[in-house]
Amino acid sequence: MSTHPRQPSASAPPDLGALFLGPKGENADIFERLLLEAFRDHIFWRRNLHPEDGFLIQESDKRAPGYEDSLSLLSQELMGLLSQLKGGVPAFSPRYIGHMSSDLTMASLIGYFATLLYNPNNVSAEASPVTTRLELEVAEQLARMVGYAPERFWGHLTSGGTVANFEALWVARNVKYLPVSLRHAAEEAGLRQLGVRLADGREHPLRELGLWQLLNVPPEAALDLLERFRAQVGDAGSAMELVMRHSLASLGYQEFGLRLSSEFKDALAPGVVLVPSTAHYSWEKTCRALGIGSRQLIHVPVDTHFRMSPAALEDTLRTLAVRRQPVIACVAVIGSTEESAVDRLDQLADLRERLGRELGLAFHLHADAAWGGYAASITRGPGGARRTYEETLADYAPEAWPSEGVYRALCALERTDSVTIDPHKLGYMPYPAGSISFRDKRVRDLVSVEAPYLFHAGGNESAYLGRSIFEGSKPGAAASAVWMSHKVLPLDASGYGRLVGETAKGAMALHRRIASGDWAPFTPVLLPPSDLNIVCFAVGHPSLKTLEATNDFVDRLYRALSVGPDTHRRPDYFVTKTVLRAAEYGRAALPIVDRLGFTSADYDRAGGVAVLRCTVMDPFLASRRQKVDHIRGFIQTLGEVMRTQLDVNR
Amino acid sequence: MSTHPRQPSASAPPDLGALFLGPKGENADIFERLLLEAFRDHIFWRRNLHPEDGFLIQESDKRAPGYEDSLSLLSQELMGLLSQLKGGVPAFSPRYIGHMSSDLTMASLIGYFATLLYNPNNVSAEASPVTTRLELEVAEQLARMVGYAPERFWGHLTSGGTVANFEALWVARNVKYLPVSLRHAAEEAGLRQLGVRLADGREHPLRELGLWQLLNVPPEAALDLLERFRAQVGDAGSAMELVMRHSLASLGYQEFGLRLSSEFKDALAPGVVLVPSTAHYSWEKTCRALGIGSRQLIHVPVDTHFRMSPAALEDTLRTLAVRRQPVIACVAVIGSTEESAVDRLDQLADLRERLGRELGLAFHLHADAAWGGYAASITRGPGGARRTYEETLADYAPEAWPSEGVYRALCALERTDSVTIDPHKLGYMPYPAGSISFRDKRVRDLVSVEAPYLFHAGGNESAYLGRSIFEGSKPGAAASAVWMSHKVLPLDASGYGRLVGETAKGAMALHRRIASGDWAPFTPVLLPPSDLNIVCFAVGHPSLKTLEATNDFVDRLYRALSVGPDTHRRPDYFVTKTVLRAAEYGRAALPIVDRLGFTSADYDRAGGVAVLRCTVMDPFLASRRQKVDHIRGFIQTLGEVMRTQLDVNR
Repeated sequence: MSTHPRQPSASAPPDLGALFLGPKGENADIFERLLLEAFRDHIFWRRNLHPEDGFLIQESDKRAPGYEDSLSLLSQELMGLLSQLKGGVPAFSPRYIGHMSSDLTMASLIGYFATLLYNPNNVSAEASPVTTRLELEVAEQLARMVGYAPERFWGHLTSGGTVANFEALWVARNVKYLPVSLRHAAEEAGLRQLGVRLADGREHPLRELGLWQLLNVPPEAALDLLERFRAQVGDAGSAMELVMRHSLASLGYQEFGLRLSSEFKDALAPGVVLVPSTAHYSWEKTCRALGIGSRQLIHVPVDTHFRMSPAALEDTLRTLAVRRQPVIACVAVIGSTEESAVDRLDQLADLRERLGRELGLAFHLHADAAWGGYAASITRGPGGARRTYEETLADYAPEAWPSEGVYRALCALERTDSVTIDPHKLGYMPYPAGSISFRDKRVRDLVSVEAPYLFHAGGNESAYLGRSIFEGSKPGAAASAVWMSHKVLPLDASGYGRLVGETAKGAMALHRRIASGDWAPFTPVLLPPSDLNIVCFAVGHPSLKTLEATNDFVDRLYRALSVGPDTHRRPDYFVTKTVLRAAEYGRAALPIVDRLGFTSADYDRAGGVAVLRCTVMDPFLASRRQKVDHIRGFIQTLGEVMRTQLDVNR
Repeated sequence: MSTHPRQPSASAPPDLGALFLGPKGENADIFERLLLEAFRDHIFWRRNLHPEDGFLIQESDKRAPGYEDSLSLLSQELMGLLSQLKGGVPAFSPRYIGHMSSDLTMASLIGYFATLLYNPNNVSAEASPVTTRLELEVAEQLARMVGYAPERFWGHLTSGGTVANFEALWVARNVKYLPVSLRHAAEEAGLRQLGVRLADGREHPLRELGLWQLLNVPPEAALDLLERFRAQVGDAGSAMELVMRHSLASLGYQEFGLRLSSEFKDALAPGVVLVPSTAHYSWEKTCRALGIGSRQLIHVPVDTHFRMSPAALEDTLRTLAVRRQPVIACVAVIGSTEESAVDRLDQLADLRERLGRELGLAFHLHADAAWGGYAASITRGPGGARRTYEETLADYAPEAWPSEGVYRALCALERTDSVTIDPHKLGYMPYPAGSISFRDKRVRDLVSVEAPYLFHAGGNESAYLGRSIFEGSKPGAAASAVWMSHKVLPLDASGYGRLVGETAKGAMALHRRIASGDWAPFTPVLLPPSDLNIVCFAVGHPSLKTLEATNDFVDRLYRALSVGPDTHRRPDYFVTKTVLRAAEYGRAALPIVDRLGFTSADYDRAGGVAVLRCTVMDPFLASRRQKVDHIRGFIQTLGEVMRTQLDVNR
């Protein structure tokens, strides 16, 4: 299908209005036609598989009372469900600028539904010969967008970003401790000639390395070492068995930890994970579950644009090196969930190289691009070639977006060891669709297990996903949804790049108009313009004498502009809220506090500063196509809500 | 809706034929009507939300070339997808008796689809006020079926059984090490009067307990201790902070392990997890990922019915007690994935009580009922009252099913600490739908974290699922699917109980007819009749002189009766295959080997014995309603395939 003459990556760019059902269901007619087509096509497949079997249920059966009762119950409960569902949030609406929810591409919806009828399970290709292939195809598309070599990478879909990040850190830990296992395995096998390349670029004999050096083997060198070990042992199976026997995965932390202290007389401090201080709370869950410990999760300070500070990271790494505390992984966030801040991955990757040469440090570099991953499409032209910064900038003129830093960070995704990207966020696809990509497919051997009933001798190893990934049973429908959406909207500047770019333009327009609005006597205090498409702001008022009172006021604004489980109100516009907590944001939030007229002592006492948060996913928010100016509408509504909620306070 | 007069739990039982689309799409007409209803209802919701906004997309826009191109591309790619999907397995067909895939309830399909259009995210009720509630409702229904007290339990849906089991073991580990953290926290807080009830039934002062005793506090007593600690500290928040500071979750295994050895002068051997030797391979992934270590996963031998041997478990526990090696959890499997064997949970729970009194042992008891959980519905009458064994047996007469052991095991689910049940298996619902239930909701506090942007002060804590569970974003559509299906088919003997019972009858009929068939010169060697609904058998032939050759032959049969990723053949019937590996099955498989004419030495040399595996999910397989006798059809096809594949060998 790649030669299809109307492929949107060719001349005419796709019309973004044709991608969605539309806020008024404008495209309902075509969607309904496709829906019926997919459904009837499935039904006739059933009918044509062994037509000689005849019908199980006869028309006369359908007139039996039990039968009719069942079906009328089904209809009635469905009507009940439909009426309940309308109590949910209208994520499709331009009036919804709250969470990361939006209208979905029709392609993903119809792909999901069509496949739902077949219900394939991507745990193994035997149960899903088609959709496992589709999953591996979309994984390759994502890896190409990131810049990983298609012949060397490994990737797949997950239920979401939490599991993707978990799997990345699980793999990172296995790779980190691999050289220790290999050292023990080599001793057991009597192999004395193994050499390993350290971050200084030189080869060292494995058996002469101390624990600190073993825990600072660059990820690729650790996997090369595994390959050399296998080659020297000869039989790949018994080599892996030998390695596994000495691995953390097999021994568990307790026994592995005892071995470290008894054999190296120097157990070193526990391995740590570095994240920007704005990282998603799921990193804490992940570190707890993996047994790394949330105390070993180090929050690196962010700058006033809420990006991980490279200088702070350097300080942290130098301090850890002095303490001889190994780093399991460093996580860059590409699109923080609160501000859509994009960490300067290019600078972080440079830093990793420099400190590798200078101090011999090595660690796994992961990009949590769950939110911002699809933005990398702006750096790709049709066919996947990298666009220059100037070309990219010209695509979104007259807005000056992206900043050169954001562009460079997105290009630097190719320098990471793994990347999390959620199609169910900026890919505009239904849940569940997360993804994880690894630069080096050899990591798969460190987490794979065998399932007796899934094993099909001679099959392609990527066809048995359940053996090589964290999850088991998983919907093939999710793979179809992603596959269909990527078909209609390719991962380049003409496809997803336009969609994401339009949301960035919308966010900038919203930011600008809040900044230039006449709010007196209220004072909206905006965070700096976002790297991608989230707009956050606090709101002050002369009568709000403390930061606590100001935070409470923001909370009331939020409640008036959202629905909760027990809410029956339906606001005209929807936003959400976040708190820049002092413990996490540190000095990064001080400019906001200051502009609200409070001090750093107020900030510490209040514990943080609350801001309203508007996620712009509507690509038409700033376009002239919209019949209603929703930015103006939102600003009006917000102004009214401010006045009402301030009165409540009195 | 619980008072609806046609609720199937009332007099007239639902017609099972009215539950599914049917192998020939017999119910396509009603389903199509509901599909359109759900779709149009959604579209008109969109249209009626602020009708004054007008249409974003005008009819004239739709005639623009970019627009038409986009939509024709969408149509064309969908047609491509539909033709590809037919390369998948026809799980809806009575001819498919392979993996755990089947036709789905129409209720779950329409519930999923209707909600897909709204795409709520059950990470928090703010993003899904309706479907989070539905998720909590179905979690309660499952907990009631299991027998947990609704006011004390905690449960939710997961992406599948792997994540559910993972979460159970994660929680079990946190509870296991809680008394150690509390001991340290109490010391720091200067609380010297805390007492704890041990498995001997008596109260002991916390500060006098040794590490072995601290790691043998019964789960409920550990949670009581936490409550007492909180009460004595006074402020719940700072109490939890204190406990967390000393917890494994916070410190991580490395630091926690060092503390154990330095403070107790006796670190004890690593904690272990006990599973039957037939347990699913995901338990290995889970133990590796959690840092427990796959070597600490002890496979307890099974008997010749492939159920965990209580005697072997007792031996294992006594040996561990002598070695002073703590048990984190013991897992009973309710419906093994290979044989649908049901462990004698009642006997295992008795054993836990007895050894608690006798040896002071305590551990978390988990039921992995991913496959068999819905079978517990056979023990419930309308309204949820427990049916006696005699009543249950009468329901499935003239078959003598279930055995009393299976009945007692299902009733004993209420004696566990947690249960995994997958609606996407015997619940006949689409992926992804797993579930986890905990007997005691207090465990939630040990895994919860806060998410700044989800926190809505004053809200109901269960409304923020992402804070309290392993996963984050998750489809509200899955909750609707389960909710709708439970509405149409309740979790009692009149609902799911009938469905599961019919599959058991089908499996017994299949077993009987293979056993009584005329196969000469082939010899099918059946495993004993299954506890639920899976039929496995090896196949011998005089010309197959070794077990290896026999296993190869079974593999060829399997390949002829299945599709792989690169297969274009479509067999008349579909089965799957498994290998009873010597390393896992041990002596349990010897009767099969023996009846094939081989010795235990042959078995060890071959590494296992291969069997074909037929999962019976079709409730009509043995019913006279079927126009075609598919058992006979399968037996004929199998006979032909045997002859063909034997010839290939020559």
